Amino acid sequence: MPEDTAELRRWVAETDPYTLAHELNHAEADRRGEVFRLLPPDKVFEVFSHLDASSQADVLPTLDEATVTSMLNEMEPDDRVRMLAEMPDDEAERLLSKLDAPELHTTRLLMRYPEQSAGRLMSPAFVRLRADMTVDEALAHVRRENEQAETIYLLPVTDDALHLVGAIELRDLVVAAPEQPIAPLIKDVAVVSAYDDQEAVARLVKSADLLALPVVEEDRRLVGLITFDDAMDVLEFEEGEDFARTGAAEPVGKPYLSVSVVRLVRSRIVWLSVLALAATLTVNVLSAFEATLESVVSLALFIPLLIGIGGNTGAQSATTLVRALAVNDVRTGDILRVAGREARAGFLLGTIIGLVGLLLVTLLFEWSIAVIVALTLVTICTLAALVGSVMPIIARLLGVDPAVFSAPFVTTIVDASGLLVYFLIAKAVLGV
Amino acid sequence: MPEDTAELRRWVAETDPYTLAHELNHAEADRRGEVFRLLPPDKVFEVFSHLDASSQADVLPTLDEATVTSMLNEMEPDDRVRMLAEMPDDEAERLLSKLDAPELHTTRLLMRYPEQSAGRLMSPAFVRLRADMTVDEALAHVRRENEQAETIYLLPVTDDALHLVGAIELRDLVVAAPEQPIAPLIKDVAVVSAYDDQEAVARLVKSADLLALPVVEEDRRLVGLITFDDAMDVLEFEEGEDFARTGAAEPVGKPYLSVSVVRLVRSRIVWLSVLALAATLTVNVLSAFEATLESVVSLALFIPLLIGIGGNTGAQSATTLVRALAVNDVRTGDILRVAGREARAGFLLGTIIGLVGLLLVTLLFEWSIAVIVALTLVTICTLAALVGSVMPIIARLLGVDPAVFSAPFVTTIVDASGLLVYFLIAKAVLGV
Repeated sequence: MPEDTAELRRWVAETDPYTLAHELNHAEADRRGEVFRLLPPDKVFEVFSHLDASSQADVLPTLDEATVTSMLNEMEPDDRVRMLAEMPDDEAERLLSKLDAPELHTTRLLMRYPEQSAGRLMSPAFVRLRADMTVDEALAHVRRENEQAETIYLLPVTDDALHLVGAIELRDLVVAAPEQPIAPLIKDVAVVSAYDDQEAVARLVKSADLLALPVVEEDRRLVGLITFDDAMDVLEFEEGEDFARTGAAEPVGKPYLSVSVVRLVRSRIVWLSVLALAATLTVNVLSAFEATLESVVSLALFIPLLIGIGGNTGAQSATTLVRALAVNDVRTGDILRVAGREARAGFLLGTIIGLVGLLLVTLLFEWSIAVIVALTLVTICTLAALVGSVMPIIARLLGVDPAVFSAPFVTTIVDASGLLVYFLIAKAVLGV
Repeated sequence: MPEDTAELRRWVAETDPYTLAHELNHAEADRRGEVFRLLPPDKVFEVFSHLDASSQADVLPTLDEATVTSMLNEMEPDDRVRMLAEMPDDEAERLLSKLDAPELHTTRLLMRYPEQSAGRLMSPAFVRLRADMTVDEALAHVRRENEQAETIYLLPVTDDALHLVGAIELRDLVVAAPEQPIAPLIKDVAVVSAYDDQEAVARLVKSADLLALPVVEEDRRLVGLITFDDAMDVLEFEEGEDFARTGAAEPVGKPYLSVSVVRLVRSRIVWLSVLALAATLTVNVLSAFEATLESVVSLALFIPLLIGIGGNTGAQSATTLVRALAVNDVRTGDILRVAGREARAGFLLGTIIGLVGLLLVTLLFEWSIAVIVALTLVTICTLAALVGSVMPIIARLLGVDPAVFSAPFVTTIVDASGLLVYFLIAKAVLGV
């Protein structure tokens, strides 16, 4: 995006709406307003509709009242609800008052559902068929109602009271003989409740290999459709969240370069402080062994090496399990099986690294130090793999995001317990 | 999945093919053969077609020759190529000899493209339209050709020599007036080259908000279509890979519980050894300051705390940047901007933690130790954030997966350089 105003004007005129929106999502907030003021009126809505919800929430209040009102009424209901959720409550209420009656109705309908629920993600406008139609009638109906629906690739079939009977894929309808009844084409598709969690629903959409899934309330009453692309956006967001938490930071939910340094610091300081507090445990452990340390100072030389290797082993296990839990490869009931596997894996890794360590340390230090280092490596790696694999599962059992109890947390625990192991082994071997 | 044979038989009979495939993907290899022998013949292919490529490669050689031949010929060409890539070369060649001539031709065609390329991911069978058709003619053509194509939701438009003119969405075709020409419905969609990398292509499919993208060779000659769901499978695999590497392990590419402990160890031992070797640097640094350590043993007490906090700060930055690079929020050209932002963030984090540390350490130790700890925290956090953010970008510049130079690597570097900083500050403050 050019800095200079004249060049910026040219760039805005020449670039397609999709690319403009993509660049704006990644730009700082004040530059977004600048670009929007340069947009020709016929492009404003298209660019706006491609923006992320949080960018939309930033931009909308900077536009003139007439544009705000018309854009607000033109948006897809689910996009509107997501944008309003990013705004302060009073600003959201002010904007709601600008909606036409039918749009206000749909918006309030979606806002009844809890945040992060399928109801907030669904499109409440859909084209539904009746089971007694013929293919020709169904296609004619689709043509008439097409405009108002976000997708027509999945066509739910309901009775008159909106109870879901099944659904037909547009593809099957298009290739069927026109005079045939649609009944044999109806599939018994998976359905989700409007109150289900968005992440679970998104995984179901992905694995069902369908372009949309029906969303129902009690008695299978149809209230909307969740489309494949909205589901994928949820999964991308959740994966970003897992990723951030694995690195002991809270997700900022916006493109990296569009976020201020202060906001980055805020997303990191809490976890960093918690981990720092936990790490003071290592000072306590070392204080307890200060006499041993004073008599054999060379023991101190291996402290960072040993706890570093332990931390890395723990991080490997933790990262593997966070991912396995996220994609449902592992469930909480597998905890004992996982613990057994990881303890064995950690023992094997520790033995391999320990044997190499034994050889190398013997060359440069006394044999007793080499034995202490090797024994510590075996113990610490077994312990780290065990803690690293079990912690994310325990987090899930407690209803906490497993990614929170991932690598950095495991590393900190392994640091303190690893030191304890190291000095206990040292005292036993050296007899001090 | 039940252990007992009688119960297993009942479970296989009662469960739908999709669920069966999902459970088999997560089962150990020998249980897969058991289940396949219990499947009724009419269900075998459907279950098989829902398996992962690597599970398919495991199962196929265990079936009888007649079933192998018929299933092999029935598979979608892109699925077949993915499965063959998972097998030893001689086994793959043996299976290729069982293909009918047309299927062999398509398979060889796809196998010409490099692994991880768009050509391997695409479906080579598609329904193409000519620009001079009417809507009615186009729909009739789609009905005739539907069977052979993986998707008809995006219909590429080409000339007689297969040069791509554009594409039409099925939705637009269905709702248009039957007698109208299709020309005005043709869109100028994004295209990808058959030689492009799968991950980049999958991100494009996702962001283009289309259900498929055309794949072309030179002169925009159409060779296939990449569908949304195949693209999403690639992204899921790549995200798993990023995740594994962030935890210093190579991805195993299979569900966690279906992989043996030895395979888990193999996926981790290389990186763990490399990191252990790098960590020996910390022994060298500490050896160099052994005299300082002997004269002030209490300095040793803070070693794990300081390098732990440094490592966590580095991990936060590294994880943030690995993700930002993966989703194209940051490009390699942003390296200086990123370095500046992260150095400031690290300095702020270090100052906050350092001030708290100054207070706490003064209560229990001499003020000089407190000053050393606080100054080290500020320096080490700034350094860690800088190294953590820049390393993944440098990896990308060198053509290496940024996730490889992520948290564990950064932690190890920060350990050694942090110790250097700590003892240099200690010597300066204590004047020893």
